[in-house]
Amino acid sequence: MRIHSDYMTVQTKEKRELLNITPNIKAAVEKSGIRDGIILISSLHSNSALFVNDEEPGLLQDIMEWADRIAPFGPDYHHSARSESNAGAHLQSLLLNHQAFVSLTDGKLELGPWQNVMYAELDGQRPKRILIKILGE
Amino acid sequence: MRIHSDYMTVQTKEKRELLNITPNIKAAVEKSGIRDGIILISSLHSNSALFVNDEEPGLLQDIMEWADRIAPFGPDYHHSARSESNAGAHLQSLLLNHQAFVSLTDGKLELGPWQNVMYAELDGQRPKRILIKILGE
Amino acid sequence: MRIHSDYMTVQTKEKRELLNITPNIKAAVEKSGIRDGIILISSLHSNSALFVNDEEPGLLQDIMEWADRIAPFGPDYHHSARSESNAGAHLQSLLLNHQAFVSLTDGKLELGPWQNVMYAELDGQRPKRILIKILGE
Repeated sequence: MRIHSDYMTVQTKEKRELLNITPNIKAAVEKSGIRDGIILISSLHSNSALFVNDEEPGLLQDIMEWADRIAPFGPDYHHSARSESNAGAHLQSLLLNHQAFVSLTDGKLELGPWQNVMYAELDGQRPKRILIKILGE
Repeated sequence: MRIHSDYMTVQTKEKRELLNITPNIKAAVEKSGIRDGIILISSLHSNSALFVNDEEPGLLQDIMEWADRIAPFGPDYHHSARSESNAGAHLQSLLLNHQAFVSLTDGKLELGPWQNVMYAELDGQRPKRILIKILGE
Repeated sequence: MRIHSDYMTVQTKEKRELLNITPNIKAAVEKSGIRDGIILISSLHSNSALFVNDEEPGLLQDIMEWADRIAPFGPDYHHSARSESNAGAHLQSLLLNHQAFVSLTDGKLELGPWQNVMYAELDGQRPKRILIKILGE
């Protein structure tokens, strides 16, 4: 069994931003030399999200607007009493999830034709770390 | 370490349909010969969902009606402007998740007494692929 | 490849309760002797949740109040017709998720500075089982 851990740090210009990190995962796989197994991709912060979905710009806008409807940003949270303004980001991280797996077979990511791994920065403009961990042979 | 990848293709009669795929996972485990490890079950489409929960018909109806309340189907999405009518299916896939893990011990799935692995087709009537990947010994 | 399965049973005093089970996971890792790999933590019940997030008391209260808004408890569910009163708990389990992974490197859990693994009992006052499964070297 081989294990390879990779890390990437992102710092977005905007407070909220969506990044397609599929190319970063492919690069980590290539570096690892592992050809068959699974890949854990996990945000090491609880105020960002990480999910697999289509990368169609209209749909990505729908996803972010939906997250805002279901778990709005704002001051009306207990968390805010401790001068934190990002309770909404934490709830959206739970809604959209903060980690996902991609299967690796014959050196290739097993994603559907439209699937991409998306990182959703929800409280950005500062360095955030993402873990890419590959287990296999 | 042994790795076994299995695939199943489903084509539902209805646009939306719930399938209990626990028997398919058991069959894949038997074929693999792996007795201890973890099983990744992942939809290779972002307009269907995959989750672990009880298989009580009333509850399953509750789950689908809840998904419809939280992430309604309809034309009022940016995604629809590209003549896609399934933005709601993508949001419900995020809400319910599109992948899950089941632990494998002594050749048996470690599910609670009522837990089953459910595939929720949200945009069906065409072939959809599900990955069952087993890692262990 | 080494595999270690651990189980913990919790019985909360209240119907709903949040527990930080990060120390239990650390104890399982120590017992296993595994230093590098991944840890699956999974509730073996579909009426409780398990997620990674910050352990700030105000935020945890926000999370539970949010879950109650999005998936209220109550009798207005089909599941209730079978004299089950916990449909809301099942929906909240889907909303918050019932399993998570933590990466293990050099014998240490790879969690962000504020991240903890939280078990959310949603239908307690009876014994509930949680699986902690470690795969690695």
